[in-house]
Amino acid sequence: MQPVLQLYNTLSRTKEVFEPITPPHVGLYVCGPTVYGEAHLGHARPYITFDVLRRYLTHLGYKVRYVRNITDVGHLENDADAGEDKIAKKARLEQLEPMEVVELYTGSFHTSMRELNNLPPSIEPRASGHILEQQAMIGKLIEQGFAYESQGSVYFDISSYSKQYDYGTLSGRVVEELLAGAGNERRTLEGQDEKRNPADFALWKKAQPEHIMRWPSPWSDGFPGWHIECSAMSAKYLGDYFDIHGGGMDLLFPHHESEIAQSQGSCGHHPVKYWMHNNMITINGQKMGKSLGNFITLSELFNGTHAKLTQAYSPMTIRFFILQAHYRSTLDFSNEALQAVEKGLKRFMEGVKTLLSLQPSKESSFAVDPLIASYHEALCDDLNTPILIAQLYETIYQGNLMASGKASLTAADLQKLQETVKTMVFEVLGMKTEAEAATDKVDGLVQMLLEMRVEAKNNKDWATSDRIRDQLAALGIQVKDSKEGSSWSFS
Amino acid sequence: MQPVLQLYNTLSRTKEVFEPITPPHVGLYVCGPTVYGEAHLGHARPYITFDVLRRYLTHLGYKVRYVRNITDVGHLENDADAGEDKIAKKARLEQLEPMEVVELYTGSFHTSMRELNNLPPSIEPRASGHILEQQAMIGKLIEQGFAYESQGSVYFDISSYSKQYDYGTLSGRVVEELLAGAGNERRTLEGQDEKRNPADFALWKKAQPEHIMRWPSPWSDGFPGWHIECSAMSAKYLGDYFDIHGGGMDLLFPHHESEIAQSQGSCGHHPVKYWMHNNMITINGQKMGKSLGNFITLSELFNGTHAKLTQAYSPMTIRFFILQAHYRSTLDFSNEALQAVEKGLKRFMEGVKTLLSLQPSKESSFAVDPLIASYHEALCDDLNTPILIAQLYETIYQGNLMASGKASLTAADLQKLQETVKTMVFEVLGMKTEAEAATDKVDGLVQMLLEMRVEAKNNKDWATSDRIRDQLAALGIQVKDSKEGSSWSFS
Repeated sequence: MQPVLQLYNTLSRTKEVFEPITPPHVGLYVCGPTVYGEAHLGHARPYITFDVLRRYLTHLGYKVRYVRNITDVGHLENDADAGEDKIAKKARLEQLEPMEVVELYTGSFHTSMRELNNLPPSIEPRASGHILEQQAMIGKLIEQGFAYESQGSVYFDISSYSKQYDYGTLSGRVVEELLAGAGNERRTLEGQDEKRNPADFALWKKAQPEHIMRWPSPWSDGFPGWHIECSAMSAKYLGDYFDIHGGGMDLLFPHHESEIAQSQGSCGHHPVKYWMHNNMITINGQKMGKSLGNFITLSELFNGTHAKLTQAYSPMTIRFFILQAHYRSTLDFSNEALQAVEKGLKRFMEGVKTLLSLQPSKESSFAVDPLIASYHEALCDDLNTPILIAQLYETIYQGNLMASGKASLTAADLQKLQETVKTMVFEVLGMKTEAEAATDKVDGLVQMLLEMRVEAKNNKDWATSDRIRDQLAALGIQVKDSKEGSSWSFS
Repeated sequence: MQPVLQLYNTLSRTKEVFEPITPPHVGLYVCGPTVYGEAHLGHARPYITFDVLRRYLTHLGYKVRYVRNITDVGHLENDADAGEDKIAKKARLEQLEPMEVVELYTGSFHTSMRELNNLPPSIEPRASGHILEQQAMIGKLIEQGFAYESQGSVYFDISSYSKQYDYGTLSGRVVEELLAGAGNERRTLEGQDEKRNPADFALWKKAQPEHIMRWPSPWSDGFPGWHIECSAMSAKYLGDYFDIHGGGMDLLFPHHESEIAQSQGSCGHHPVKYWMHNNMITINGQKMGKSLGNFITLSELFNGTHAKLTQAYSPMTIRFFILQAHYRSTLDFSNEALQAVEKGLKRFMEGVKTLLSLQPSKESSFAVDPLIASYHEALCDDLNTPILIAQLYETIYQGNLMASGKASLTAADLQKLQETVKTMVFEVLGMKTEAEAATDKVDGLVQMLLEMRVEAKNNKDWATSDRIRDQLAALGIQVKDSKEGSSWSFS
């Protein structure tokens, strides 16, 4: 029997049986990046985690609509609605039109996601492309008395909202404390005096005259606050009550808490059935941050060009590294850990290859059904990918026994096991064989030929030695002889 | 001396010296695809043409802002504002949310563009992301008396516009004829009776109740017409007077003519300095069309899966094919033509490789400056890529003479020529070495080793023969021996 999928719901702080609102459809919303810089290690974890969730739900037969936004306006440097818009600032520094910055980093984000083998979302809406939808929701919040205009900007009124709904349930914050004092130090930040309470957050910001990203609105020429885009776009594409909302734990407060308040304030009920949060990645035990010099972009990881890296790590090494920890555990990045994963991944993929090339026997020396069941048990237990990988290692061990004649499976059993392993490794975990393979093989083959050339020379068989060099040259491979031996390059 | 760039301006029907409005900046707008299906052969030509234009302008030192839109709403099946929205129809047929259709085909369009080695545009705005901007322009047109509301939709009033401006100058249409009768047969099409004149075109369409893609507006809940997006988005990102507007000749009328009318009607002057149009691709002399069974998508071309194709053609073969004709000439696609280009490209790239690996001599037997000048002369003559390629073939011929010792260049001359050829081939024409290379080499290398194994066997040198097989196996290459000889596969 197929085990029942359970997911940890941050809202209830328990694992719950997953029951979609309108099966077989599943609506999944995940907060996407603010595209003002290269994607970094911190981006890898949520997007791999929810990619695997989407892949597994699809494997289970659900029709998943996966919406992941692009924040291209409204994300200010400071969460308390102060400082410059991150994209506007980058545009100023790079002397570009803000949308050029957006395009550049959206492109490099997509490249990184492709390399990590994350499937593209079903819909990838942009904040700047949904100004009307955000304005409509802001209008509703003002109507309901949960938002107020102040000098052309509009703020969410936490005090008024709290009289009708609980604010802070997702993150466990106590609204009285938030309202009382938590924000006093923020008073000094520009624009804070427009707010009735420092804990209130911006829904619409009036644009300064020099601000390029601006749109007309009933309140001012301006731009939306950071939180409102996710409420407006998730409602537009998934409805005002949908199945799963995912994101990193760092977004729990204020971002997700504000999303709940906005959605509930405008449509009268909680917007999401299951809230899921992945834990953070630390680097050698420290939080990642530009000031600590440990801020590593994904492309730096893939080509090894950051000072903290002793080598390059392939996208599949990063993916395997992330999937070998449960998504709700912290995960510490270090060269040592990554190197261990790299070795492990090599063994793992070789083991999978061996397993997939095995021949059947007349009898089965072990049962495949419990092994296969264990895969689903792991995934159904709140997407426990490390346990799944451990079970796959166990399967590989059996495969190696079979390869050396110490175990066996009938054709039917073998086929069932091979099909399931293929599905789990490539479709659900989303691993792929690395493209490096072809280049690696060229090197291995050329080395074989160079060794044979050395032998021929030692035997004074000049004809063979020259022939090897000439044939290699014809293939576009140039051999260079020196005192230390022969090396080669593409000519 | 650097020759002066001249471009053919459709507006004046002459070649004109290119002088940007605000050097060193160049604004370039190219009409992008309507993303309701796979990119096809017809998409390859404009995007390769204007990619090369952008690359050459950048090479000349201009700072190019290249804007290419994505039409994700408003493009109806029939140019006379009738029929379903193309994306809404596809969404209905595929049972998807329209934005899922948009995402799917935007993704596959990007993949095809990457394969063709077209650089991404600086900004790629979406029609649905610029509803407010389009509404603002429609509002201005109504104010100026060039547009009118009718049953919730808004139409451009060609008759009123023609009293103040010329309509039809770009395409050479005569406005009296358009207004008099050209559209009589359109009367029967749904929605045409809302228009004062059948030649008028939609700026805003009231949405039918079942229509999902809809936004509030002062006139109705609806969606923008097809033409208005390009006027609104080009003005937003390039200003209301910019340098170059490009597109296929099929867009001259009504699309570009309508763009001019909208922009001029709202801002009072012509929006574009140089209008450039690429000619069409025919297939075996026929127009490409779904009913003719000759509608070939780019991915079908790349993998050879269309009935009209006798083989697959690599993206670089397609690129070279397109660049070997002048962009304003018609270009006929056929298997024979493509196969000839494939062979030519192979010779061309081998010639380039030879040239780049040449060694200098003490004297130059020919002059490099006239050769180099000829490249720029070709490109400056309205982007004449076939002449550039012919001149590069001439250079390759010289390179082959040098390789066989019949010509020579000094180190300085050789370096200058090599640098320029590299720039022209890879940076300006945007050719790249095909990825097939690595796999090809693997086969060549394995064949060499298999031949050596046959020899060893013939010499009864079983040790060597076995060693080759075992070492190949260790590299993941399996040798299969049969009566016909040995073959190999990745294990």
